[in-house]
Amino acid sequence: MMRRTLLLLGLMLGLQGTAFLEVLAQPRHPRVFISAEEAAALRENAERYTLLRTTLARVRAEMEEVLAKPIEIPPPGEAGGYEHERHKQNYREMFKAGLLYQITGDERYARFVRDMLMGYAAMYPELGPHPRSERQIPGKLFHQLLNECVWLVHTIVAYDAIYNWLSEADRAHIEASVFRPMASWIMNEGAYEFNRIHNHGTWAVAAVGMTGYVIGEPDWVEKALYGSNKEGKSGFYAQLDQLFSPDGYYMEGPYYARYALWPFFFFAEAIERYEPERGIYAYRDSILKKALYATVQTAFPDGVLPPLNDASLTMDIRAPGVVLATDVVFARYEGDPALLGVAHEQGQVVLNGAGLAVAKAYDEASEVPRMTWPSVEFTDGADGRRGGIGFLRTGVGRDQTVVLMKYGVHGLGHGHFDKLHFMLYDNGRQVIRDYGFARFINVEPKYGGRYLPENESYAKQTIAHNTVVVDETSQNRADRDEAEAMSGQRHFFDGRGGPVQAMSARANGYWPGVNMQRTLLLVEDARLDYPVVVDLFRVTADTMHQYDYPLHFLGQPIWDNLGIRGYPDQLRPLGTDFGYQHIWEEARARTDSVVQFTWLDGSRYYTWTVAAAPATEVILGRIGAGDPRFNLRREPMILVRRRGRDHLFASVIEPHGYFNEAREISLRARPQVQAVRVIGHSEAASVVEVVGKGGWTWTIMVTNGPADPDARHTVTFGNRTFSWTGNYAVEGVVVASDSRR
Amino acid sequence: MMRRTLLLLGLMLGLQGTAFLEVLAQPRHPRVFISAEEAAALRENAERYTLLRTTLARVRAEMEEVLAKPIEIPPPGEAGGYEHERHKQNYREMFKAGLLYQITGDERYARFVRDMLMGYAAMYPELGPHPRSERQIPGKLFHQLLNECVWLVHTIVAYDAIYNWLSEADRAHIEASVFRPMASWIMNEGAYEFNRIHNHGTWAVAAVGMTGYVIGEPDWVEKALYGSNKEGKSGFYAQLDQLFSPDGYYMEGPYYARYALWPFFFFAEAIERYEPERGIYAYRDSILKKALYATVQTAFPDGVLPPLNDASLTMDIRAPGVVLATDVVFARYEGDPALLGVAHEQGQVVLNGAGLAVAKAYDEASEVPRMTWPSVEFTDGADGRRGGIGFLRTGVGRDQTVVLMKYGVHGLGHGHFDKLHFMLYDNGRQVIRDYGFARFINVEPKYGGRYLPENESYAKQTIAHNTVVVDETSQNRADRDEAEAMSGQRHFFDGRGGPVQAMSARANGYWPGVNMQRTLLLVEDARLDYPVVVDLFRVTADTMHQYDYPLHFLGQPIWDNLGIRGYPDQLRPLGTDFGYQHIWEEARARTDSVVQFTWLDGSRYYTWTVAAAPATEVILGRIGAGDPRFNLRREPMILVRRRGRDHLFASVIEPHGYFNEAREISLRARPQVQAVRVIGHSEAASVVEVVGKGGWTWTIMVTNGPADPDARHTVTFGNRTFSWTGNYAVEGVVVASDSRR
Repeated sequence: MMRRTLLLLGLMLGLQGTAFLEVLAQPRHPRVFISAEEAAALRENAERYTLLRTTLARVRAEMEEVLAKPIEIPPPGEAGGYEHERHKQNYREMFKAGLLYQITGDERYARFVRDMLMGYAAMYPELGPHPRSERQIPGKLFHQLLNECVWLVHTIVAYDAIYNWLSEADRAHIEASVFRPMASWIMNEGAYEFNRIHNHGTWAVAAVGMTGYVIGEPDWVEKALYGSNKEGKSGFYAQLDQLFSPDGYYMEGPYYARYALWPFFFFAEAIERYEPERGIYAYRDSILKKALYATVQTAFPDGVLPPLNDASLTMDIRAPGVVLATDVVFARYEGDPALLGVAHEQGQVVLNGAGLAVAKAYDEASEVPRMTWPSVEFTDGADGRRGGIGFLRTGVGRDQTVVLMKYGVHGLGHGHFDKLHFMLYDNGRQVIRDYGFARFINVEPKYGGRYLPENESYAKQTIAHNTVVVDETSQNRADRDEAEAMSGQRHFFDGRGGPVQAMSARANGYWPGVNMQRTLLLVEDARLDYPVVVDLFRVTADTMHQYDYPLHFLGQPIWDNLGIRGYPDQLRPLGTDFGYQHIWEEARARTDSVVQFTWLDGSRYYTWTVAAAPATEVILGRIGAGDPRFNLRREPMILVRRRGRDHLFASVIEPHGYFNEAREISLRARPQVQAVRVIGHSEAASVVEVVGKGGWTWTIMVTNGPADPDARHTVTFGNRTFSWTGNYAVEGVVVASDSRR
Repeated sequence: MMRRTLLLLGLMLGLQGTAFLEVLAQPRHPRVFISAEEAAALRENAERYTLLRTTLARVRAEMEEVLAKPIEIPPPGEAGGYEHERHKQNYREMFKAGLLYQITGDERYARFVRDMLMGYAAMYPELGPHPRSERQIPGKLFHQLLNECVWLVHTIVAYDAIYNWLSEADRAHIEASVFRPMASWIMNEGAYEFNRIHNHGTWAVAAVGMTGYVIGEPDWVEKALYGSNKEGKSGFYAQLDQLFSPDGYYMEGPYYARYALWPFFFFAEAIERYEPERGIYAYRDSILKKALYATVQTAFPDGVLPPLNDASLTMDIRAPGVVLATDVVFARYEGDPALLGVAHEQGQVVLNGAGLAVAKAYDEASEVPRMTWPSVEFTDGADGRRGGIGFLRTGVGRDQTVVLMKYGVHGLGHGHFDKLHFMLYDNGRQVIRDYGFARFINVEPKYGGRYLPENESYAKQTIAHNTVVVDETSQNRADRDEAEAMSGQRHFFDGRGGPVQAMSARANGYWPGVNMQRTLLLVEDARLDYPVVVDLFRVTADTMHQYDYPLHFLGQPIWDNLGIRGYPDQLRPLGTDFGYQHIWEEARARTDSVVQFTWLDGSRYYTWTVAAAPATEVILGRIGAGDPRFNLRREPMILVRRRGRDHLFASVIEPHGYFNEAREISLRARPQVQAVRVIGHSEAASVVEVVGKGGWTWTIMVTNGPADPDARHTVTFGNRTFSWTGNYAVEGVVVASDSRR
């Protein structure tokens, strides 16, 4: 803090520019990502440390294949097409080759980078804006400026790495033909992107700023840090201020976080290496460190990042931006051993001093911990007051059960209309799921690999998520601006472990006059096979509505207590808009009683038990209607439909038993939980009972009024009175004498 | 052969019974599965050999859990229910405990077996026939006799193992209360099963025969070997004669083979141990050895047995019957090192001398080969003249590509109407698939875990397979008796390796007046990413018919050249009977041109390119119509529909490119093959051209007349003349200078 204050003082006194020029005057190369000293240390330890050895072996093998083929620099092509992919591949290869030249001293790598750069220098000046940009700011090599920035970030590292090896004439030619015009294009024609508070903006400022450092243009660095007009309303610092909550949670969610971390840490490293006096890693109470933790700590036990907002179902912490951030945070902060568990899942390190530090610590650790995150909540919004995201966790390593709930901000253009959405990860898989984005990323025949139309018409809509839908419309009627102006609100979060953990949040006004509160509990009872999820979803409204409560699962329906029957000879869409037009209605049943539905997913059974309410409809659906191009996956869903004003959906999801088809074993295919009963709910509290086989009962009491862990509550429903202290209480859970895990 | 002749002579002279009694007079226990000497050797080497150590550790750990709980012997219950499973678990535990007692000398195991046997001795005499047998011969403990026989096979081994440890009084009580009445029940009330040429019959004779050896009832052994009336028309020898082809292929297919091998090898071991002079392992030119090879050599590279006829999709060579047979064949025959590759996949051994032999050889081998089977054909039918099954293979270990075609017998009650059906295994998965059985095995809420009604109405029908369907009816109109009377016929098989392998077979008269010939080629061309499948399916008929050519795949449609469009707002079943009532029609298009359809499965793209024909219809379907109980999986299919008399479906399945969603990489999503052209086809030959990108061409010539590898053929189609020698020829394939594999 002190150092930052001094720097700001220096800036105000007009000293900063001068000091800056002194730094840049030092003719040191390489510097922007790796130094000669680091390269020497990597060379020395190349065979010593497991993760470094593995990484180097892979990268060298890849480059051997590359060096065996001629360099190819095609004219620009369409998104996802061959030329597009070739230019992407080229920057990846230059980046690797540059670092390998530093580490090994083998001039073949340097020649490769030079020859490719000379090729680009021959082509680039002739290029105009890319003709197929489609509503985006174009690059010249690529249809969108973003790719051009990513190209430059990687390429400038490669250039820096061979800078001293290049002739002065070649350097001048390359800088004049490629780096200067490209940086100029990004800053000027691309000013909108450059000044955006968005990950595209971060790539832009990182590209320009890193290039400014390497080729000695301090003015570019200033613009990169403080925006085109250097006022600080945009640029890197503004992005650090506004794109993360105070907890480090990235507002677009983890899938984009893994991509945003990449330029944040590339540029941060460059700043630290050229201007350590800026104290970039201490900035905003170490926001860069928090950003890394708030990304990896959202990961499921297998390392996959939860698909919140537009996201693939498989993106994971092995993504290069996360590997870079993990290694840098380990090296630049306190060397947290928990990050070695992350490095273990990653199985690789970055090729600079930070990667070396991780590789060394990994091998020298007496025991590398398995990646096991605790229950954790991240606030959302730049001020941390716009809701958040909560994770309840129990178990160790890959066997963890995870329940997450999303109650933060909309999340910009990739946001989904999914407040109070939840997911359940259990037994190594996403059991209650998010559809992810509707996109076959980079698959050229599928709409050029871009987002598919069904991303808007289905994947973003509320019904595609596990949260209550009102009147077959989406939250905010799928109006993004309206959604951005609101946020969910946290009620309470208790992730201290123990047999019961709980979190509660609200989403008010996402439909006019409708307020919602969801309370999720993760309960471990010695009489049950596995931890179960209890869900109290309370809706209050000023008038009657239809409420649809959907669960998206995978696997096969096994049993239900309704005698539900699939339609034999005709399927129709469930609705006409807001995603309902994409769901085939497969079956419908009516009941006034408790609903029970069992399905089989992997080696485990799951039963959903929903408290009774009059005139309940249960609908089985399958995604795929209104999908002429077969863009959607044919996945199942179940929903419980009710009409009402104030209503509490109370339910339990119970994993149970074991199935192994190959071994032909099936155990406990029927649930233990027999019923859920709503005792009562009001503005003050909700009280629910869960009844198990043989009659055992849990009583669950949740405070609906203001959160206060010390407040004493007494409510009466019918002739029964309930008292508890704090935000919630659960009675009747049997704790195993020795914990199962 | 000589020894068998002598034995038969002895039998005719009435000597055999005497010699037999002498053998049985020896008071040796244990003997039926393990001897005291073997047990001592296992004890001595318990920690030495990997596979033995692993197996023992697992079995001991399992038994520790068992010993910690009270013994439970419930009254008989329904199929798949708790009691049913408990009795199954009991025999498994007694079997393990008996062997562990022998190996470790720990009396806790012996006590466990005794206490459980005494429990059964207390209950069994009170039991009548199981009340819920439903069209099957009942047991007393179980609803079907089969389970009772499996119980007895395992339990008699356990009894033999603790025989000497038991008091004479206990032995007398147990034999009188359990083994004698149970064996009597199987031989008498169960005579139909006991005398059946069927795997149920093998379990019955093994149970009775092994019990006869252990408790000294030579008459039972005689009946087990030669049938109730000892005439040899039924019993073990007749089963060995009739259930396997001369190549050892089991007529019900691999899924049931893995189950049938179990009693075959249990009983064979008993015979060899009590009466080695019978030379059971040499019987029928070593048919037991062939039976093991003809099972494991059908396995896909991951060890999964191909789902032919009623079968699960996951049953594999780790099944206990296959482990037993593998170890016994290794020990009793020539110790083939290739079987160590099988043992590697199994990761376990049986706990007797055979298992020890494998464990020892496994650790002592300088290198354990990966399980890599060559291309191979097995004839079908007891005489080997009723068609067969062919496997074309290329590649090593788990990376193999496998094409299989089924052209043998129907296969009894579990047979499917699927002659000329084929499957493709590629990139570690079943790419062109068989549905398997419609059954959630042992899942009690799903119809008691039994075969579901949809097994008859869908899974067995021709349309559920990858073979041409005529007039929307199944082969033999799904009449089993009619199907049993026929078989496919092999035409030729060339699995010698090299860039082109091929197999061809016929199915004539499965529809009245309709003959079929399918020729499958596996082609490796240096210009293509992976081996491709070429399929020439020729149908000839005496009148016009509708021909449907379906492929069952998984994954997502990516591209087609027809602009095919899914129905947006209504789905109807594709037909009304023979399985068609279970398929939702999702889309339909018409074309007179070449059909191309690309889908994505796992990390690879697949394109099906079908030669043009006028008025072709292409239909996309999805399983799940007419399925009120959600018993079927919602899997996709594509079919090409044509009308004609004589028609050749010529097509190519090309795997290509690479997709990795997590890494966001997509390469070569479009195919290289551009067209398939039928040049001509006649009774003499079929000639087809495959055309690739840039115009390269393969010319494929297949002989349709009698097979003769040396015959010279010349045919003229239009103005082109083609000449070749042998059953087929392919021109234009470019062979890689250094093979990819």
